[in-house]
Amino acid sequence: MNIAILFGGSSYEHEISIVSAITMKKVLKKSTITYIFVDSERNFWLIDSEKINSKLFSSGEYKKSKQLTLKQGGFYGEGMFGSKQVAFDVLLNLIHGRDGEDGKTASLMTFFSIPFISPRLEASALSYNKLYTKFLAESLGVKTVAYEHLSKNDTRTISMDYPVIVKPVRLGSSIGVSIVKSEAELDYALDVAFEFDNDVIIEPFIEGVKEYNQAGCYTDGWELSIIEEPHKEEFLDFEKKYMDFSRDSQVCSAEIDDVLTEKIRETFKKIYDPLFQGSIIRCDFFVSQGEVLLNEINPIPGSMANYLFEDFEGMLHRLATHLPKENSIGVDYTYIDSIQKAKGKA
Amino acid sequence: MNIAILFGGSSYEHEISIVSAITMKKVLKKSTITYIFVDSERNFWLIDSEKINSKLFSSGEYKKSKQLTLKQGGFYGEGMFGSKQVAFDVLLNLIHGRDGEDGKTASLMTFFSIPFISPRLEASALSYNKLYTKFLAESLGVKTVAYEHLSKNDTRTISMDYPVIVKPVRLGSSIGVSIVKSEAELDYALDVAFEFDNDVIIEPFIEGVKEYNQAGCYTDGWELSIIEEPHKEEFLDFEKKYMDFSRDSQVCSAEIDDVLTEKIRETFKKIYDPLFQGSIIRCDFFVSQGEVLLNEINPIPGSMANYLFEDFEGMLHRLATHLPKENSIGVDYTYIDSIQKAKGKA
Repeated sequence: MNIAILFGGSSYEHEISIVSAITMKKVLKKSTITYIFVDSERNFWLIDSEKINSKLFSSGEYKKSKQLTLKQGGFYGEGMFGSKQVAFDVLLNLIHGRDGEDGKTASLMTFFSIPFISPRLEASALSYNKLYTKFLAESLGVKTVAYEHLSKNDTRTISMDYPVIVKPVRLGSSIGVSIVKSEAELDYALDVAFEFDNDVIIEPFIEGVKEYNQAGCYTDGWELSIIEEPHKEEFLDFEKKYMDFSRDSQVCSAEIDDVLTEKIRETFKKIYDPLFQGSIIRCDFFVSQGEVLLNEINPIPGSMANYLFEDFEGMLHRLATHLPKENSIGVDYTYIDSIQKAKGKA
Repeated sequence: MNIAILFGGSSYEHEISIVSAITMKKVLKKSTITYIFVDSERNFWLIDSEKINSKLFSSGEYKKSKQLTLKQGGFYGEGMFGSKQVAFDVLLNLIHGRDGEDGKTASLMTFFSIPFISPRLEASALSYNKLYTKFLAESLGVKTVAYEHLSKNDTRTISMDYPVIVKPVRLGSSIGVSIVKSEAELDYALDVAFEFDNDVIIEPFIEGVKEYNQAGCYTDGWELSIIEEPHKEEFLDFEKKYMDFSRDSQVCSAEIDDVLTEKIRETFKKIYDPLFQGSIIRCDFFVSQGEVLLNEINPIPGSMANYLFEDFEGMLHRLATHLPKENSIGVDYTYIDSIQKAKGKA
């Protein structure tokens, strides 16, 4: 199978996406990879998969590659004998953060009829924004951590007890996130968060809360990963998460009982189906007093969380043949024809 | 000002969009119009604004026009001397229904850096889906009509009293909508609605409820239309709405007191700002026992509801110079450089 990997983008996680894409070379051993890079100006480039390395991008050398144009049905490059389509079976959207996770890439691929693996438009728009994720969870009967929402021009007061965690609503990879231990620190944390977004959510910071991650997708049946208990640190800062995105070796299952395992899995399924069909996502849960709370949906986990699966590559191939189909809409000009007739013009 | 009108699309409202676009010729008297048609296969065509008429599309004759390609910065056509950019100052998204109102066009225009008038990605994704509109309203403290939500595979039982109105969650222009007077009729109405969507919402059908429409936008200040009381009919069916989309003459203000006027206006502003910046929308409200309830957000009203405004064209020009700006994200390869250094490669 020839898998096109789309990466880069106009995103704070542009570099993370490059690392994530290069890592896939070690993960996808049985597939052919076609690399399509989106530079920070949002131009498309066909990158030689033999020569790909991170310096190619930081040095600007990628600009010697073939530039591509998006047209109906695929990506095209100009050659000696006219425009030629880039061949691949399915596109994997590996743009983290803006452009990739916010619904733009999903829109582009759907509009231009390119089969792709990633959350679709609505799933992206809802999961990219942490406030909308709360609405979604509520509508599905999935519990989340309590929260307050502040916009840039709102009065900076909150009613919950400290410590709290302040998060820009639209970013991943912990960018702009702070733990605030007392009221005196709130202002600075909000300044930081509002650097990146006009909206923030504030949640109680629960000391020692158990955290579990579940990744998975639906192909011809459920394919769920092991449940991981991430490393205990206050939270992963940008640099640590960055290193995390290049992981390619398997980790161990969390030591939890069957009842909790089942609860986490059922909650994952409730969130995934049908909204996230066509994608591999990771849900991060908190467990508090036996209750499973959704913390975050990671719509495009770093390197797709390959290290949580036994047969990641096989799953990707199965998913590629089980993508959701867009409803086809027939346009037949019935009304225009009848108006023309009424006017005596047809 | 040269205004590009984007219309058509792969949408049940493809024909409505054509009518809406042609109507703008009568409305925009001081502007130059550049027509860009999206056919049902989602190819772009530059349509001669002198020759535009509905038959051009129903006959397929539009295919003799110049085909366009979307690239960074604009639309391009191939000519004798290479690729040439189509010149315009701002693009008006007039694709009704899918592609236009669901966030795809907003994604495309944002990605390709084209200044455009229409709701942005998030605003589109939330307002295109009637269920998500409920979440949005709730988060803003705006009241809506009570509702129940059914997915295609759910048991077909509801708990509210009849009569009810059944609506597919993702369509405009009353397509697939039924009024159901008793339980015996529910099954058929659901069959109809599920023809068009996998999700429906069901609301009480309130006999004789007062309905008021408010359109508007924010430019260098609020520009709100008159409040219209739409014609009293059970509801507008597709054909009637279709004719409605070609309206270009002004209507009269609803006869309501200042208190209600103010309530409607404040509710409109609460919904619009900041999510809908850059667009002209119409909100349809119900008024029941002095309370203002949001019925629907119409993110791209037919012919942009021009007939509700005194100076529609002037407003459009002002809006074109007050479009929201995307946050600029600098990509500087700091992390990749530092990894290169750590590896001794730089």
